[in-house]
Amino acid sequence: MKHTISILVENHAGVLSRISGLFSRRGFNIDSLAVGRTDDPETSRVTIVAEGDEHTVEQLEKQLNKLIDTIKVKTLAPEELLPRELQLIKINANPQQRGEILTVCEIMGAKIIDISANTMTLEISDTPVHLMRFEELIRPYGIKEIVRTGVIAIQKGADTITKK
Amino acid sequence: MKHTISILVENHAGVLSRISGLFSRRGFNIDSLAVGRTDDPETSRVTIVAEGDEHTVEQLEKQLNKLIDTIKVKTLAPEELLPRELQLIKINANPQQRGEILTVCEIMGAKIIDISANTMTLEISDTPVHLMRFEELIRPYGIKEIVRTGVIAIQKGADTITKK
Repeated sequence: MKHTISILVENHAGVLSRISGLFSRRGFNIDSLAVGRTDDPETSRVTIVAEGDEHTVEQLEKQLNKLIDTIKVKTLAPEELLPRELQLIKINANPQQRGEILTVCEIMGAKIIDISANTMTLEISDTPVHLMRFEELIRPYGIKEIVRTGVIAIQKGADTITKK
Repeated sequence: MKHTISILVENHAGVLSRISGLFSRRGFNIDSLAVGRTDDPETSRVTIVAEGDEHTVEQLEKQLNKLIDTIKVKTLAPEELLPRELQLIKINANPQQRGEILTVCEIMGAKIIDISANTMTLEISDTPVHLMRFEELIRPYGIKEIVRTGVIAIQKGADTITKK
């Protein structure tokens, strides 16, 4: 089962290496990891999506809580989270194909951010499921390159995972 | 100076811990890091934005190239890259404020992905500069929580950083 873990950490040197070391020592397979600043310059938020059973996740949460840099750890329940990911895709596109690619982008909510004689570069942010559908639609043109951010998530409603 | 480094790696266990360990041992301050799948299930792409002088970046590139999991490393020149980031922001919003927040979102290209009695959750993906402007516009309402993916980047034109 896939788990989404949100970790609020102090911005210390080496914090990322300690967190990723913990996962690799436990033999946990990380699907994706994203680290970004928060509203507080002294903290960062790490979002990890990883595969594993309930017991292993509990153990991992305990270990993460023991790290000196950790402020808060929360495994987000699937029904309470809004997962999102950003994807940049460079595809083959000859001039005759541009129009139909534009239509797919409009319907699926993607933006065209660059173009060359025989390529187009697309940007899309949405749920992982929607991104997969978009990828399948665009695949027949020939995917030259994909860059992904990894999944981040926020809780539905007014709840937050913050310092206070 | 800020540098954007794109690293294509084999999906081995512990690769992330080896990369982040390299940065922390060199005293390199990581601004953001994002790891995502690529089109090939056996490789992932790590995008790192870090602060440092030319010499240190060159040294780091050499070290990264020596890692067993590394397929390709490239520091992207500012003029050739399209940087993008995804941000989820939960803000205070009473019912009377919803209309004006909706207008800001429409103009700035943000989506409203959730709402509660006194909050709204916004999703925006764009350049880091645009995201900062959006944040400043939305800040007066009261930011409850920010989740960021970290910056990813793709090269302008037809060039790619891929295995072949």
